[in-house]
Amino acid sequence: MSGQISVTQKLVVAGMLTCFTSSQGLLMTASKVGGKYPYNVATIPLLAEFCKLLVSLAFLYKEHKEKGHNLQITTAWSSVRLFPIPSIIYLFHNNVQFYTMAYVDAATYQILGNLKIITTGFLFWIALKRHLSRNQWLALSLLTLGAAVSQVSGCGNSMLSAPVLGYLFACLSAVLSALAGVYTEFLLKKNNDTLYWQNVQLYGFGTLFNAARLTYDDINSPAGGKFWLFDLTEGYNYITWLIVINFSFSGLFISWIQKYANTIVKVYATSSAMMVTAFLSIFFFDLEPTLQLFLGISIVCISILLYFMPGDLPASTGLASALTSSSKTLPGSQHDEECGKLK
Amino acid sequence: MSGQISVTQKLVVAGMLTCFTSSQGLLMTASKVGGKYPYNVATIPLLAEFCKLLVSLAFLYKEHKEKGHNLQITTAWSSVRLFPIPSIIYLFHNNVQFYTMAYVDAATYQILGNLKIITTGFLFWIALKRHLSRNQWLALSLLTLGAAVSQVSGCGNSMLSAPVLGYLFACLSAVLSALAGVYTEFLLKKNNDTLYWQNVQLYGFGTLFNAARLTYDDINSPAGGKFWLFDLTEGYNYITWLIVINFSFSGLFISWIQKYANTIVKVYATSSAMMVTAFLSIFFFDLEPTLQLFLGISIVCISILLYFMPGDLPASTGLASALTSSSKTLPGSQHDEECGKLK
Repeated sequence: MSGQISVTQKLVVAGMLTCFTSSQGLLMTASKVGGKYPYNVATIPLLAEFCKLLVSLAFLYKEHKEKGHNLQITTAWSSVRLFPIPSIIYLFHNNVQFYTMAYVDAATYQILGNLKIITTGFLFWIALKRHLSRNQWLALSLLTLGAAVSQVSGCGNSMLSAPVLGYLFACLSAVLSALAGVYTEFLLKKNNDTLYWQNVQLYGFGTLFNAARLTYDDINSPAGGKFWLFDLTEGYNYITWLIVINFSFSGLFISWIQKYANTIVKVYATSSAMMVTAFLSIFFFDLEPTLQLFLGISIVCISILLYFMPGDLPASTGLASALTSSSKTLPGSQHDEECGKLK
Repeated sequence: MSGQISVTQKLVVAGMLTCFTSSQGLLMTASKVGGKYPYNVATIPLLAEFCKLLVSLAFLYKEHKEKGHNLQITTAWSSVRLFPIPSIIYLFHNNVQFYTMAYVDAATYQILGNLKIITTGFLFWIALKRHLSRNQWLALSLLTLGAAVSQVSGCGNSMLSAPVLGYLFACLSAVLSALAGVYTEFLLKKNNDTLYWQNVQLYGFGTLFNAARLTYDDINSPAGGKFWLFDLTEGYNYITWLIVINFSFSGLFISWIQKYANTIVKVYATSSAMMVTAFLSIFFFDLEPTLQLFLGISIVCISILLYFMPGDLPASTGLASALTSSSKTLPGSQHDEECGKLK
C-alpha cells in the first residue's frame, strides 16, 4: 500500500500539516476572551481524540465494505496492548513538562523544547535503526538551532539562568516527546494493518486516557463543581470548535505521515509551522518583525534544503579541494606552476 | 611552488590567522586608557603596512640570495600598476563605511558587515570563475547567518529600523570589501612570481596610501598640531606595539592564504575569529555569555563542516529517500507490504 503513495502526496500532506499546525497558535490566541480562555483547555485534546476516533471508525467501516475480508486487521491482544503505550508516554511527558516549567521560565522552556528535534533524530537512528546521512544530521542540528534562534527574546537572556535540574527535566521531556513519536511510527509500520484500524486503537486509548485525566483533575480540584462530562463544552465559541477540528485533522495527518513517510518529516512540518505562526502573528496581531525571526527562518530553510535535497558529489567538496589554491579557469596559474619548476 | 604546500600547512596558517585576528579586538580594548585610545588609531594601519613591507623585503632579499636568477619577479609596469588597486578599493570602502554609519546604528552596522561573506562567495564565483558546490553555497549562507545570530543584541531590535539608503550603502560596502579580497587573490595568483615580491608591491603601495590619508587628515583637521610624521607613535604603550605586530602578521598570513589557499578560507578564518573574540571577551572582560553567541558559534561550526568536509553520496539524501516510509531494518514492513498485495 505504501508503494502506491507518491512523493507529491507526501509533500501535500506534510504541507497541510504545516498549515493546520501553524494556525493552531493563532486560533488559540483568537479564542481568548478578555485575555483568558473562557473554556476548560484540557477538554480540547479529549474532544480531538474522540473526533479522530469517529473519523477513523467511519473510514474503517467504508474500507471494510469495499474490501471485506481482504482488509488486514490484527485483533490479537499481543498487538492491541501496544497501542496504549504512546498515551502512557504522553502522560509521563505532561508531568515532566510540568516539573520543567517549575524550574525554567516560559521563554527558556520554549527554546529548550526544540531539543525534541535532535532527540527524535537519535531515537529514529537507534530505536528504528534508520540511517541518517552526515548532511541529514547537520540539517537536524540546524533545525534545532534555527528554531531556537527565532525564539530568543534577547533582552537580558543569559545562558545559564535556570538550575541544572531544569535542564535535566527539559532533556527528559525532549526524550519522551521523541519516544512517543518514534514509538508510534514503529506501531504503524510494524505490520501491514490498515491505517484506519491502527488509528481506531490509538485514538480509542487516547480518548480513554484523556477522559481519565479529566476525571482525576475533577477529583483533585478543591472546588466542587459538576463532573467534567456535564460541562464539557461550557464556554465554547465557534473558534473553540475550529480548534478541535484543527487538532483532529493535524493528528490524522501526523499518523498518515508516520505510516507512509516518517517521524522526521513530521518534525520538519511541525517545527516549520512554529515559524509560520510567528510570521503570521506579525500580521494578525500587529507585532514587530524581529531580526531573530528572519535569521531563524533562513536557517530552517537551509536545513530543509540540506535534509531533503540530493547531496553534493564527494569530489567537489573534499578538504583539499576546498582549500585549493589553483583553479582550472584562472589564467595560467596551474600551467605556470609547472613552467616555474622547469626553469 | 603551490604544489609543495600541504593541506596541513594551510590549516595551520588559517588557524594562526584566526588566533591573531581574534586577539585584535581584545588588544584594542586593553589598549584603552580611561575608555579612550591615547594614540591616533589611524597610525596603526600605516605602521602595520610598513612593518609588512620590511618583513617582505627581508624575505625577498633572503630568497634572492638563495635562488639568484631563478627567482621569478615581474617588474613590468603593466604588472606593477595593478598593485595599488586593492589600496584604492579600500579607500572607497572606508568612505562607504563612513556613509553607512551615518544611516545605521553600530549594532546594525556590525550585523550587516557579515554580508561581505556572501558577496565574497559571489565574486569568487563570478570574477574568479571558481565552482562552489550546492553545499558550499549553503555553508557560506550559514556562516553569514551564524555570525549575525551571535551579534543580535535582541532588545527592541526591529528589522527595518534603518533607512533604505543605509542598507544600500551596507551592501555596497560588502561588495567593495569582497572585491578587494578577490582582486588581491587574482593579483597573487595571476602569475608565478614569488609571494615576497608581490607583497613588497602590495605593502609598498599600502604604506603610500596610508601616509597620504594621514596627510589629508592633517590638512583638513581644524586644530593645527604637528605634522603626523613627528608625533606618529605619541601615546603608544607596549600593547599598541603588540597591536601593530598583530596586524602585520595577520596581513602576512592573509596574503599567504590568498596565494596558496583562497579568499574563502580567509573569510572563514576571520569570521570565526569574531566569535572567538566574543567568547574570550566573556572571560577577559567578565561579560555574561549570551544564548545568541552559543547558537551563533554552533551554526558557524556546522557551516565549517559543510564547507570543508567531503559531502554525502547523492543516493542517501534524495527526496524520495528522505520521505521514505519503509526501512530495510524495520521488522517486516517492506516484506509484509509485498505479501499484502498478494492476498
